[in-house]
Amino acid sequence: MTTATWTSQGHLLGLETLSSAQLRSIVGDAEAFLPIVHGTMPDASLLEGRVVANLFLENSTRTRVSFSVAAHRLGAEVVDLLGSSASTSKGESLVDTASNIAAMGVDGIVIRCAASGGAELLAQHVNVPVINAGDGRHEHPTQGLLDLMTLLQHFGGELAGRSIAIVGDIASSRVARSNLWSLTALGADVVLVGPPTLVPAEFASVVPEEAGRGAVSISHDLDAVLESVDAVMMLRIQFERHDGDGIPDDYRERFGLDVERAGRMADGVPVLHPGPINRGLELAPEVADGPRSLILRQVTNGVAVRMAVLAGLLASDG
Amino acid sequence: MTTATWTSQGHLLGLETLSSAQLRSIVGDAEAFLPIVHGTMPDASLLEGRVVANLFLENSTRTRVSFSVAAHRLGAEVVDLLGSSASTSKGESLVDTASNIAAMGVDGIVIRCAASGGAELLAQHVNVPVINAGDGRHEHPTQGLLDLMTLLQHFGGELAGRSIAIVGDIASSRVARSNLWSLTALGADVVLVGPPTLVPAEFASVVPEEAGRGAVSISHDLDAVLESVDAVMMLRIQFERHDGDGIPDDYRERFGLDVERAGRMADGVPVLHPGPINRGLELAPEVADGPRSLILRQVTNGVAVRMAVLAGLLASDG
Amino acid sequence: MTTATWTSQGHLLGLETLSSAQLRSIVGDAEAFLPIVHGTMPDASLLEGRVVANLFLENSTRTRVSFSVAAHRLGAEVVDLLGSSASTSKGESLVDTASNIAAMGVDGIVIRCAASGGAELLAQHVNVPVINAGDGRHEHPTQGLLDLMTLLQHFGGELAGRSIAIVGDIASSRVARSNLWSLTALGADVVLVGPPTLVPAEFASVVPEEAGRGAVSISHDLDAVLESVDAVMMLRIQFERHDGDGIPDDYRERFGLDVERAGRMADGVPVLHPGPINRGLELAPEVADGPRSLILRQVTNGVAVRMAVLAGLLASDG
Repeated sequence: MTTATWTSQGHLLGLETLSSAQLRSIVGDAEAFLPIVHGTMPDASLLEGRVVANLFLENSTRTRVSFSVAAHRLGAEVVDLLGSSASTSKGESLVDTASNIAAMGVDGIVIRCAASGGAELLAQHVNVPVINAGDGRHEHPTQGLLDLMTLLQHFGGELAGRSIAIVGDIASSRVARSNLWSLTALGADVVLVGPPTLVPAEFASVVPEEAGRGAVSISHDLDAVLESVDAVMMLRIQFERHDGDGIPDDYRERFGLDVERAGRMADGVPVLHPGPINRGLELAPEVADGPRSLILRQVTNGVAVRMAVLAGLLASDG
Repeated sequence: MTTATWTSQGHLLGLETLSSAQLRSIVGDAEAFLPIVHGTMPDASLLEGRVVANLFLENSTRTRVSFSVAAHRLGAEVVDLLGSSASTSKGESLVDTASNIAAMGVDGIVIRCAASGGAELLAQHVNVPVINAGDGRHEHPTQGLLDLMTLLQHFGGELAGRSIAIVGDIASSRVARSNLWSLTALGADVVLVGPPTLVPAEFASVVPEEAGRGAVSISHDLDAVLESVDAVMMLRIQFERHDGDGIPDDYRERFGLDVERAGRMADGVPVLHPGPINRGLELAPEVADGPRSLILRQVTNGVAVRMAVLAGLLASDG
Repeated sequence: MTTATWTSQGHLLGLETLSSAQLRSIVGDAEAFLPIVHGTMPDASLLEGRVVANLFLENSTRTRVSFSVAAHRLGAEVVDLLGSSASTSKGESLVDTASNIAAMGVDGIVIRCAASGGAELLAQHVNVPVINAGDGRHEHPTQGLLDLMTLLQHFGGELAGRSIAIVGDIASSRVARSNLWSLTALGADVVLVGPPTLVPAEFASVVPEEAGRGAVSISHDLDAVLESVDAVMMLRIQFERHDGDGIPDDYRERFGLDVERAGRMADGVPVLHPGPINRGLELAPEVADGPRSLILRQVTNGVAVRMAVLAGLLASDG
């Protein structure tokens, strides 16, 4: 773990290598940008004249728009390269596409792709900052940061000793993977919850045992952990990645957070979800829109986090 | 009818509830912006730093680009969420998508959707101004406003006592519906023209009888009204909404505005069309491009109207 | 050949009518913009408040993004009208679409379309500058200009007497056509190389014999010319235009620039390619990424050239 600023890496590829001090530094910047997102402070012009390229080889309207709003709030312009029209997701072609965009003199590349490690591959080949907006099953660091920011807000700035359940398709989830790194780095314990097909045993040992780092455990029984955890993060069931493979027929009955289950959670225990929600499947509408839900706050924090990341990487290299 | 400014509603969902004074107020603002559209006045920066979201769940390149140009002319940035990639058009999901965009801190949402009433549904769930860019068969208020502006320009600022024919598929047309409200509010009489399948009898009683409001009548015979009206507004035949259902085989012969028919109209009677035109079907190319045509002026006025609406709703809530 | 500035035409439709002085003038402007592209000079605000419409009826992510970055670097905003959603590529409808965009008060239209001569057709019907970004098999002038700029940089500002090979599907290539005009205008001799099906004999007489203009010749044997030319420009084999028709089965063996062939070229002879590359087909990856390659420099120069063209046409008509 380095004590250098996180921007010294020049990219944001994942949360695995960030220390708790670095994670807190990004979240602190994001907090400072929040009044701009809320419209109670004038926009910043930190990135005036900069051009950010959104290279989204997989579709993700919300993440793309969040990055775009963040860039515009800082005075930057955005060019979109979307879907199959941009390129294939083959490794070679991905590098070709990115090399070309970089050669056009854009100031940063936000990359969403199906290939795990695609963001790092890009970072090795271009001379501009690369921001990982989700690469295969690897990481989705800005999602991890916005979840971290939201939980830090909720728990008054400290996560040490807190127990956070992440429920759903852990094996396919880059969101779970980024959260594993950042939540444990801040000292929280993480319980991964889901059927054995979606929560393989090896996930319990992904994160190293270190002083100050939280522990990871696995449970295949949501009801058994629900009443003891301090926060519940529901994941989206991604049928599009599975053809339903590995998702038990009784998934909703066993792992869906319905009104009855939410009623058994302790007072004040919040519910998070990265969106978009399969309403009535992994999460009941009444819970998603109810008092436990931090979901829209996650969305707002997402813009602030992306402002912090863009500002950190693009303003500093000027 | 209220005497308050139209912006007090916080949204623009339709023209049905706007008084003639409010309609004139928007058109007056649009006239003031027209020199910016024409490039003979520097751009305004009224909306500098604002971000407008174009949420177009139905495709409409022209309307979207018109809103985008209007926003840029006022110094605002635009993020596009287009088509099926943005979300489904199911009510619940529409609200989810819009809630998320609003939570990102955008300053306004321009919505085009297939669901009649979709814009109002959104306005009930988000805390930012919603501008209806066409919702199902309900309304398309900025189209109604640009048509009104164009006709007011042509008739020297007064429509009272004028007779305006709207020709085509009235039943499916949100354009016709918005125009019904605004034209009669300004005192014009409207004749709805088309075959009985496309112009149901109940349309004659949509608009209430009120002092100062024009009357609505129905005709199934274009030739019978053509020589007596003061303006003719042709609608686009929307095969994509019908599978041709309800459109008579001899539609063009009976309701198309060809050169011969245009020749029988009185001197100076103008022709309007919301575009895009099915050339040679509802409107002959010679008429669309001829001296009666106000069609490109409608397009120019459309940018000015959208500037007025964006400025009214987004600059005032600052 | 006129001595007037190239902007006096009001559009950029092709390179055929530009003199060597006019070509050098655009390239000179582009050289002046290059530090902005490289990020070593602050952005210009020459086009602040201007709105450029990208009307791309054929897909071309790279060219569109290059124009967008160029516009943003000059302070302009961009609206995209893409693919089949924008309109059909039928002549009449193309004019309709463009007339509408122009009526919205945009300051310039960048057009990519399948119809040869489509850009000129537009220029006849709209009152704003039209920039041809590739029209059918006619011209792709900004590609020609960036190739010219790249070769002038390589050869110290003079092309007279140089011999440039253009290799590939000459018959379908608007890139080849634009380069034919500009390279010979600067005094370079051009050798068109490919199988007879792709390099028809009539291409040898497209360019007139004029004092100061280079000559055009044809070769069906790459190996016969490879060791004597001063630069090699490989074209993309466009299977999408051919269904493979006219492309010999042994194309790669006879006309691909592989490592062995590149090894026989004289020291310092550069390789260009307009991208995207079919790696391993017309060009070996080792050559594309090797020391002879000017391909990424072409990409960078492309932004500078498009800045020069946009600034020339849009700033001057203000």
